[in-house]
Amino acid sequence: MGRVFDLPARPEMVVLCGRRKDAVHQDAARHGWREASDDWKSVLLRDDVHVVDICTPGDSHAEIAMSALEAGKHVLCEKPLANSVAEAELMAEAADRARRGGIQAMVGFNYRRVPALSLARELIEQGRLGTIRHVRAQYLQDWLLDPQAPLTWRLRAERAGSGALGDLGAHLVDLAQFLLDEDIVSVCGLVDTFVAERPLVDDAQRTGPVTVDDATMFTARFGGGALGTFEATRYAAGRKNGLRIEINGSAGSLAFDFESMNELSFYDATEGAETAGFRRILATEADHPYLGAWYPPGHVLGYEHTFTHQLRDFVTAIAERTTPSPDFAAGLRVQRVLDAVQRSAAHHSRWIPVGGGR
Amino acid sequence: MGRVFDLPARPEMVVLCGRRKDAVHQDAARHGWREASDDWKSVLLRDDVHVVDICTPGDSHAEIAMSALEAGKHVLCEKPLANSVAEAELMAEAADRARRGGIQAMVGFNYRRVPALSLARELIEQGRLGTIRHVRAQYLQDWLLDPQAPLTWRLRAERAGSGALGDLGAHLVDLAQFLLDEDIVSVCGLVDTFVAERPLVDDAQRTGPVTVDDATMFTARFGGGALGTFEATRYAAGRKNGLRIEINGSAGSLAFDFESMNELSFYDATEGAETAGFRRILATEADHPYLGAWYPPGHVLGYEHTFTHQLRDFVTAIAERTTPSPDFAAGLRVQRVLDAVQRSAAHHSRWIPVGGGR
Amino acid sequence: MGRVFDLPARPEMVVLCGRRKDAVHQDAARHGWREASDDWKSVLLRDDVHVVDICTPGDSHAEIAMSALEAGKHVLCEKPLANSVAEAELMAEAADRARRGGIQAMVGFNYRRVPALSLARELIEQGRLGTIRHVRAQYLQDWLLDPQAPLTWRLRAERAGSGALGDLGAHLVDLAQFLLDEDIVSVCGLVDTFVAERPLVDDAQRTGPVTVDDATMFTARFGGGALGTFEATRYAAGRKNGLRIEINGSAGSLAFDFESMNELSFYDATEGAETAGFRRILATEADHPYLGAWYPPGHVLGYEHTFTHQLRDFVTAIAERTTPSPDFAAGLRVQRVLDAVQRSAAHHSRWIPVGGGR
Amino acid sequence: MGRVFDLPARPEMVVLCGRRKDAVHQDAARHGWREASDDWKSVLLRDDVHVVDICTPGDSHAEIAMSALEAGKHVLCEKPLANSVAEAELMAEAADRARRGGIQAMVGFNYRRVPALSLARELIEQGRLGTIRHVRAQYLQDWLLDPQAPLTWRLRAERAGSGALGDLGAHLVDLAQFLLDEDIVSVCGLVDTFVAERPLVDDAQRTGPVTVDDATMFTARFGGGALGTFEATRYAAGRKNGLRIEINGSAGSLAFDFESMNELSFYDATEGAETAGFRRILATEADHPYLGAWYPPGHVLGYEHTFTHQLRDFVTAIAERTTPSPDFAAGLRVQRVLDAVQRSAAHHSRWIPVGGGR
Repeated sequence: MGRVFDLPARPEMVVLCGRRKDAVHQDAARHGWREASDDWKSVLLRDDVHVVDICTPGDSHAEIAMSALEAGKHVLCEKPLANSVAEAELMAEAADRARRGGIQAMVGFNYRRVPALSLARELIEQGRLGTIRHVRAQYLQDWLLDPQAPLTWRLRAERAGSGALGDLGAHLVDLAQFLLDEDIVSVCGLVDTFVAERPLVDDAQRTGPVTVDDATMFTARFGGGALGTFEATRYAAGRKNGLRIEINGSAGSLAFDFESMNELSFYDATEGAETAGFRRILATEADHPYLGAWYPPGHVLGYEHTFTHQLRDFVTAIAERTTPSPDFAAGLRVQRVLDAVQRSAAHHSRWIPVGGGR
Repeated sequence: MGRVFDLPARPEMVVLCGRRKDAVHQDAARHGWREASDDWKSVLLRDDVHVVDICTPGDSHAEIAMSALEAGKHVLCEKPLANSVAEAELMAEAADRARRGGIQAMVGFNYRRVPALSLARELIEQGRLGTIRHVRAQYLQDWLLDPQAPLTWRLRAERAGSGALGDLGAHLVDLAQFLLDEDIVSVCGLVDTFVAERPLVDDAQRTGPVTVDDATMFTARFGGGALGTFEATRYAAGRKNGLRIEINGSAGSLAFDFESMNELSFYDATEGAETAGFRRILATEADHPYLGAWYPPGHVLGYEHTFTHQLRDFVTAIAERTTPSPDFAAGLRVQRVLDAVQRSAAHHSRWIPVGGGR
Repeated sequence: MGRVFDLPARPEMVVLCGRRKDAVHQDAARHGWREASDDWKSVLLRDDVHVVDICTPGDSHAEIAMSALEAGKHVLCEKPLANSVAEAELMAEAADRARRGGIQAMVGFNYRRVPALSLARELIEQGRLGTIRHVRAQYLQDWLLDPQAPLTWRLRAERAGSGALGDLGAHLVDLAQFLLDEDIVSVCGLVDTFVAERPLVDDAQRTGPVTVDDATMFTARFGGGALGTFEATRYAAGRKNGLRIEINGSAGSLAFDFESMNELSFYDATEGAETAGFRRILATEADHPYLGAWYPPGHVLGYEHTFTHQLRDFVTAIAERTTPSPDFAAGLRVQRVLDAVQRSAAHHSRWIPVGGGR
Repeated sequence: MGRVFDLPARPEMVVLCGRRKDAVHQDAARHGWREASDDWKSVLLRDDVHVVDICTPGDSHAEIAMSALEAGKHVLCEKPLANSVAEAELMAEAADRARRGGIQAMVGFNYRRVPALSLARELIEQGRLGTIRHVRAQYLQDWLLDPQAPLTWRLRAERAGSGALGDLGAHLVDLAQFLLDEDIVSVCGLVDTFVAERPLVDDAQRTGPVTVDDATMFTARFGGGALGTFEATRYAAGRKNGLRIEINGSAGSLAFDFESMNELSFYDATEGAETAGFRRILATEADHPYLGAWYPPGHVLGYEHTFTHQLRDFVTAIAERTTPSPDFAAGLRVQRVLDAVQRSAAHHSRWIPVGGGR
């Protein structure tokens, strides 16, 4: 990111941690880390480490993040924040305490950093959509289509917490709450598992149970009255990373599909009918979020750059002593929605209020 | 239709009925009807009328359709079949009785006759999608965006039965059941009204209550296990007639949007990854449904032609003494789904089984 | 058209003419003509025939059109106007004479009547594109891909005049001149024939020479300084009726593809960069050309309706005693461009001025 | 690139050269170069420099590249290879000599490295398009729309050689020759300059003459008989980096637009008409060129990655002692086509054979 953006601080890549000694040394060398380690706890004791980026499965987020915050390290934690609301609450509290000491924490909802979606947020903030009526969000992948695909950690509840709900649905919930700057207040939903048994990773002759959802669908009501439909699945043949969101308001609409991540569709209902129409904004102009630092117009960005932007924002927040966004409280709010969906699903999909408040 | 298709019978346009004498005479002249009348009951007594096409609001479908069937007239009835399940059941029974006497009845779900959607049905029947996992159906319009739009009959429950649900949602439900050749067995859903009062048609200074839904969203489970999400609204800014449906199966996917009605997107998951991709089938080839009678490839059809095809199929069914599709039983099955959505909405959106059977 | 539009006159379908007696009687009955005839000359003598619509191959346009005009009949002539500039000049002169007697003549460039393209013309007239710099026009079909496709009249110069040039290129030239309201003043171009011999229509065992072009490409300069590239082919695999035109000006751009005939893409370069983008105008609003008479927004039109609009405009011009557009002079201007392309092709593609003037 | 690909060698970033001492030191620090220098000749004397990447304007390519090759450095040279055929010939000869000594030279036509376009080349090589009939290539930008945009080096012939022709057209020519694996053998074309004077970079109150073309259009014939139309412009309002190419063959078609760089459209004409259609291949599968090293499907790449791929291929060629592609001979072939276009433009656009041979 330092090659693209003017940063208020120059980050150094100190030490890469992992469980498998060989692999972590190899990867550290490849990616330019100064050192490698298989003991994250000792790393937290080091004085030359100021920032920790947690990229583990959800079951270890809480322990690592809270230890790191306690050790005075700034923390960027992969999404979803945790595997349960209880953990997420503890993490948010820890982050609150840390913030009072000048230590920052952020959740890795990287899709907020797609320039087209940052632009979407700006347009909504400016009131270009008027009163929001509808949010229509889908995250469609197809990598589980093959019933012989192996039972990785993502399909085991004890590691991943949930399936499509926490992996994909979490992004949708965060994005919707970010774009509208409103929380979801109640949901009704379902989760389903299409293929109940899959071959083990280490022994393809044997199978084990899939303990997470393959797909989830839920309806939501936002604080401001808007209605939302959400769907996440790993069984949508041909949709590879189809994170789509459409928002309809009284003054306009927005639509986005990550598979065309440099484009935002915008309809301005205040224009005359003669020339009104969804416009395809190619979000690569210098005036667009993050783009001032990049290429000339039309020279499109890719998935990778969402992480570049995320780190740039995190480093900037640390240097400027501001709260990064999304903070752990935002991560907790997402967790509460996911939890409410699961509880609704367990109660014949009836409406469930989302716990907690903003 | 007789100018395009080789029909087994030559229909004649005998008499146009309506409530307002002047208007109906004017329209009859304009559209080539031999006569006009403001008394539909007397028309049913005529020997030279063999087919009745009912295009009235939903509150009069049952009476007219049952009278016509009793009088031995073949009946094409506008959708939704009725304003209640009770009416629809009576109509389906009447149609059953009539059929035994060689009299046919059909419901006007014209979107089945979009060639791209007829083709979709064929591909699913051929097994090109494998086991269906997901149906994603939306019908998006925006003509109620303006809160000063008048309180027409479509916004009054006593005439229209329901709002977006019966007007738009009915098409989605019929299409989904048609395409999958499966019924929806249970639903959970909601209905909502965004603008509660609107100016009267006859006196814009006064307002009256909107008594139908502005939008509806529901989740459905099909007989074969597929999950469906449905949404219909008149508040989706910029979506003019956005009837969209996407279906994902274990072997492929289909997607359609009426605003590009000549196109069907098809993904074949059995192809090699190198060249697999959603293909835009321009459904204008001689091999496509209905197209053998039309123009050379690429010379696209319009909305109007869905009705041409509908009448062609109806006239053919009458002449060949086969049951037209969708018959009143299919219309009743749609009505039961709509009714279940309303009941679910009234019970905190909890799952409700759809009554009746196929 | 009378069922859709309020016409100043009520046309009657009097007599259908054709060469093959049986076929013409059958077609007349099917399409609602009162009579049929295989003798067009006698038809021109009738007092109850006031309008003649010529749909024959190009080699008979001149004779029929001039006879009809002389007989005092209004004439709508299929495009291209003629098979040579010489014929077209005679026809334009005849039309001029006839006009002075209140008799109108029009050429059937039906694509002008696509609402999205009529709208394009309006936007350009309003100055929304500023100074036009580029016209990029392609007409892509693929029906000659198969080298065994038969040698129909369209592939014989003595009947059709030329191939892709006159059949497809003529539409492009007329459209471009219509949209810019400027004439092409010079061209450089080429014509090519990929498959030189094809099976005879009547005897597939024998072949005959293809005497027209399979494809043509030409560059053009407009009176106002804009540059144009034109291409027409019957060998563009997968393009069925791909009439596409894009126009770039100093203040904006327009793009159109007939395969999505209800859509016009419009870019307004005077907008702020934040939200500028090509907008997809769905040309189905009541404010759009011709649409006031049709369906609600989003209920799209088809190919057929270009002819409905064409006849509506012709009948209106006749009734209102105004010159219809495009008149024969416009048809002649197209012919001159086609002729210049052929002459350039015969002279190593060097620039050739287009003869005549406006 | 070493973080993504397994490379046969580990490149080190030794020294960044530039004319302005301060700027080059700043940039070197920012981008991770060990040293900075404003004297490229001294750099060529260093033993620890083995590879030279030339990113200067075209007027210095020849001198630097030939000096570097002579000094035994591998050379990657920005496109177009040179500002004249004479220079390019000398460079190609120098590269030939160097190659015999194990020193490699390559031209930076980075768009060959867009995965979707590498895939296009593979499909054509496999014969999936049959006999190629048409190439339709456009490179559309709009950054000169504003007549007050300054007179940068790109608008001065003595630095840039030509304008849209060499900057944009060169990419099109290389891509077309790469995709078809055929050379263009003759062309007819034109160049034009819309805005003749522009404000000076250093003194906006004064203007200077634009000495390059703003736009170019040319028609080409390939060795195998295919016809091509080419157009490059900086005045296509709303097109930001619209490098588009469509290729039609007897068995299929391909289409690409860089603004959606992860997508390739492919039409297979050997499929049945029922399901044939242009498929949108999202070129992000592990089976696609370069993609095995990147993210899961659907996690799209950006402009930057074309350079990552280019360097990966160059480093691999050096390590494996194979000739990289495109080599300087390929760069020369492009130069000859550009030169022929300029000569044709100077001779009333008449057909000009492209000099040299493969």
